[in-house]
Amino acid sequence: MKNKEYLDNLRHSAAHLLAAAVMELWPETKRTIGPAIDDGFYFDFEFKEPVSAEDMPKIEKRMKKLVTQWNKFERREVSKDEALAEYKGNQYKEELINEFAAEGQTLSFYDSGSYTDLCRGGHVDNPAKELKHFKLLSVAGAYWRGDENKPMLTRIYGTAFATAQELEEFLQRRELARERDHKKLGKELGLFVFSETVGKGLPLWSPKGSTIRRVLERFIVDEEIRRGYLHVYTPDIASLDLYKKSGHYPYYKDSMYAPISIDDEEYMLRPMTCPHHFELYLSEQHSYRELPMRIAELAQLYRYEKSGELMGLQRVRTFCLADAHIICRREQAKEEINGVLDLIDFVCKTLGIEQGNGYSYRLSLGNREDESKYYKNDEAWEEAEGVLRTVLLERNAEFIEAEDEAAFYGPKIDVQMRNVNGKEDTAFTVQYDFVMPGRFNLTFTNEEGEDEQAIVVHRSSIGAIERVMAFLIELYGGAFPVWLSPEQVRIIPISDENVPYAEKLAAQMRSSDIRVSIDADSERMQSKVRKAQTEKIPYMLIVGKNEEAAETVSLRYRSGEEVRDVPFAKFLEQLNLKVSTRLIEPQLDV
Amino acid sequence: MKNKEYLDNLRHSAAHLLAAAVMELWPETKRTIGPAIDDGFYFDFEFKEPVSAEDMPKIEKRMKKLVTQWNKFERREVSKDEALAEYKGNQYKEELINEFAAEGQTLSFYDSGSYTDLCRGGHVDNPAKELKHFKLLSVAGAYWRGDENKPMLTRIYGTAFATAQELEEFLQRRELARERDHKKLGKELGLFVFSETVGKGLPLWSPKGSTIRRVLERFIVDEEIRRGYLHVYTPDIASLDLYKKSGHYPYYKDSMYAPISIDDEEYMLRPMTCPHHFELYLSEQHSYRELPMRIAELAQLYRYEKSGELMGLQRVRTFCLADAHIICRREQAKEEINGVLDLIDFVCKTLGIEQGNGYSYRLSLGNREDESKYYKNDEAWEEAEGVLRTVLLERNAEFIEAEDEAAFYGPKIDVQMRNVNGKEDTAFTVQYDFVMPGRFNLTFTNEEGEDEQAIVVHRSSIGAIERVMAFLIELYGGAFPVWLSPEQVRIIPISDENVPYAEKLAAQMRSSDIRVSIDADSERMQSKVRKAQTEKIPYMLIVGKNEEAAETVSLRYRSGEEVRDVPFAKFLEQLNLKVSTRLIEPQLDV
Repeated sequence: MKNKEYLDNLRHSAAHLLAAAVMELWPETKRTIGPAIDDGFYFDFEFKEPVSAEDMPKIEKRMKKLVTQWNKFERREVSKDEALAEYKGNQYKEELINEFAAEGQTLSFYDSGSYTDLCRGGHVDNPAKELKHFKLLSVAGAYWRGDENKPMLTRIYGTAFATAQELEEFLQRRELARERDHKKLGKELGLFVFSETVGKGLPLWSPKGSTIRRVLERFIVDEEIRRGYLHVYTPDIASLDLYKKSGHYPYYKDSMYAPISIDDEEYMLRPMTCPHHFELYLSEQHSYRELPMRIAELAQLYRYEKSGELMGLQRVRTFCLADAHIICRREQAKEEINGVLDLIDFVCKTLGIEQGNGYSYRLSLGNREDESKYYKNDEAWEEAEGVLRTVLLERNAEFIEAEDEAAFYGPKIDVQMRNVNGKEDTAFTVQYDFVMPGRFNLTFTNEEGEDEQAIVVHRSSIGAIERVMAFLIELYGGAFPVWLSPEQVRIIPISDENVPYAEKLAAQMRSSDIRVSIDADSERMQSKVRKAQTEKIPYMLIVGKNEEAAETVSLRYRSGEEVRDVPFAKFLEQLNLKVSTRLIEPQLDV
Repeated sequence: MKNKEYLDNLRHSAAHLLAAAVMELWPETKRTIGPAIDDGFYFDFEFKEPVSAEDMPKIEKRMKKLVTQWNKFERREVSKDEALAEYKGNQYKEELINEFAAEGQTLSFYDSGSYTDLCRGGHVDNPAKELKHFKLLSVAGAYWRGDENKPMLTRIYGTAFATAQELEEFLQRRELARERDHKKLGKELGLFVFSETVGKGLPLWSPKGSTIRRVLERFIVDEEIRRGYLHVYTPDIASLDLYKKSGHYPYYKDSMYAPISIDDEEYMLRPMTCPHHFELYLSEQHSYRELPMRIAELAQLYRYEKSGELMGLQRVRTFCLADAHIICRREQAKEEINGVLDLIDFVCKTLGIEQGNGYSYRLSLGNREDESKYYKNDEAWEEAEGVLRTVLLERNAEFIEAEDEAAFYGPKIDVQMRNVNGKEDTAFTVQYDFVMPGRFNLTFTNEEGEDEQAIVVHRSSIGAIERVMAFLIELYGGAFPVWLSPEQVRIIPISDENVPYAEKLAAQMRSSDIRVSIDADSERMQSKVRKAQTEKIPYMLIVGKNEEAAETVSLRYRSGEEVRDVPFAKFLEQLNLKVSTRLIEPQLDV
């Protein structure tokens, strides 16, 4: 694959080509700007008559015809007056030209074929040869210069790649992302809803989504307890004084909601758990023998997001974080961070996310010079960054280093996850904190009977439940691994006479905590099967009089595959094994 | 036992006697008032010199001597001047006398023995015979007339009963309550703490208390799911509009916290879940076949309490309610309410709370005339109250009826629990609601394809987790049933050589999810046993070389009882059985 700069040039060239085609088809159009963006390019126009997605094939056709005559982009410098003459009556270009001229910029035009446009450059050498694999994607409204007080223009999006295969893969990925969009599937599968009256960015989890959430929550809590974490509950609101004490208040003010007055004190919806866990630690004296102390919580947190940035379960105004704070000695930090990365590996593996492919590490560093953003203590930054880097190197983990991405209290390792759209996001984080222990006086009695200051490792393990849920919906397209499926088995009796047998099987499964239902409706069998498949239930058991006589079931996977005459006892045994081992593939050894 | 009026008279007589003794011992004291109260009586004095609990035996002794000469209380009316003359220099009595006179009251003195006091009456006939079983309990400060701007007086508390046995039982119960006070035990056993910086009425659950909470939460969620409830998660904040729509806002305003501004909207910390569950119900169309729909949630709620009313986990500013709303047809209400009472019976039995003794029913009715407090619909009130009464009658449940205690949207059955102090409190509630379904338009499609309005049963099952926790701590004095114990087993190896055997046993228990630890400290065995007993761990396993050779353990209960040479496999089998059946008695069949 070509590098990013080449792709940007290719796509910016395509934007010129798009504008050229548009100007031929609708000569009275006013052109504005057309940059390359992450996954392609766009161009904003003011049309005389409405142009929509239905017009895209026509535009593409014209683009394909025009490009054959574009064997180069030729640059020429022009005066302000020449430039203005070219765009007579186009107030958008006039605004830009006047602005650039006022800034003293040299104005340049680029000619390609018979098309000319004001441009700073950044094209491929020979469009006729190189610009073959492009596609228009969508049409949307966009305010001129992103300002809602300015005119609404029509934006046409497209993309371009160096090869046909790359374009094809992109389009397939895009279609998959559209099909698997967690907002769409969340609605279709009845996993969560939003209510205007409850409020923006505040999801209500439906019974099925709630089942998945509960299973995920119990999984992570049990696993953490097994790894020596102490799971606690602390309040979701706290006095503003607590966040002033922690120093979060000035740094996080914009992410926090307005205070609530109770009597004559101010309380805040908590944006994080750290100071809560520190206060719990401080409620007793501690000895070095108790460290490391790993305080964990499934904590509901509240952070402000602009309403325009809210997006399904991905970006919400309240979320439940599997959070923890490891209070330990400096010498224990390395081992503890390793332990956290082990846990994250285990969680990802269980959820079916692969290291390298599904997730990667980013070492986020501070900036010694920026005291407004980072706590000043050069020596501590050196040590902490050194510990994190050593851990990653010793694990032979691939990672990138990102300057100026640390927390204000120390550097961190971010676990970056790539979603079905190809977008990268921080899913989990492991932070080394040398600031809070001082502010909160987090000490322990050492071997010499003296007070010694601890350090703190902040970490998440499964991340925010809301975000991981969005991620899993898209990863599996709603066809969840069996252990996570809200309904694991649907029994379909062939006739009413087989309902008692179905009920007997269901009762046996329920006593093993299997989530099962019986479809005894009066519809035809085939439509019941289709319904169960649409609901993405991993196993359907079809039972008639033969099955009843032989104590067997006819097993049907959601893929459509069928296995007849499976002894029910064997099915249940294998199903229990599948659930308890949390295996992802639904195939049973029956 | 004598009736309440007699007890009040006896105790008020004792207050006179207390004042008489005090005035003989410290003649310069200024007397004020001395009423009977719930569990006894008090008298407030202004002493010249400090008097404390250490003086109580001396005062009691004088009371016992004086009472032998009190064979009656004699009433005489006095003029204002006569009254003032008796209390010269006592500004408190002067204030009262002037006030009573200004109101036109007749002033009366009561003489008993050589003691006289201003009084309205309410005594026993013959104190020398009747007032034999009394006891002074404590000394505390109290503002004159409860006003913090007025002088601080010394209040002496006492109690009196008709028989020695009743007094003795009361004192024992009081001592038990003191020992079992959940605030005291919560601290001693490390179950929860409060932090000044986090804020008042906001408990932080320590790891051990959190373990109990988690076990309780999973117990109730699993049991409810088994009984057909759909467990969901909905947000802890919502737009103020939601509570205006539900009508809670005007009725509950004083219990709600101030709104939080987000962008240009107002959001509230939720005081209840009902409207959240209704919005979830409204996210889809429903058919009669889906009803009853039992929507449940472990919901964190926020209600304002005055700081003076906060009390440990009993009265807090945020609590987690096992809440549910059953949306059903009118004809289904009776069966659903029965189902809820069955669940409550099951939960109480599991927790070791007996019907009749530990809890009782109260049918709380509305007042047809009070439209400011109750939604006006006489017919609906009749029907709803009838349904609840019929359910209780058909269950042969004992209950009292309480006028004017209903919710604004309908009548309810309150399950009243008596705590170790003998105080009664509403633990759970089952409410019949005919108002919300109209406000929210909670309908379903009936057999005729028409929209029909549902009714709602609001209910809690295990109540607020905080409150049930306070109750359980006091019920068991911290010696929890095994299934709830934060630590179930402590292994004490006799020497360092036995540590590997201890670890082997611990690993086996952990794989059955038993909560176990090993005490391998260098202390003496006996002090380790004492420590485990203080922590109220149900089972200690003492293991030395004999036990290791025979694969046995020496079992010690927290009561001190011992069973030697128990095969470990048998112990573990019986322990697992004890935990899974949630039996209360710790005795194992080994």
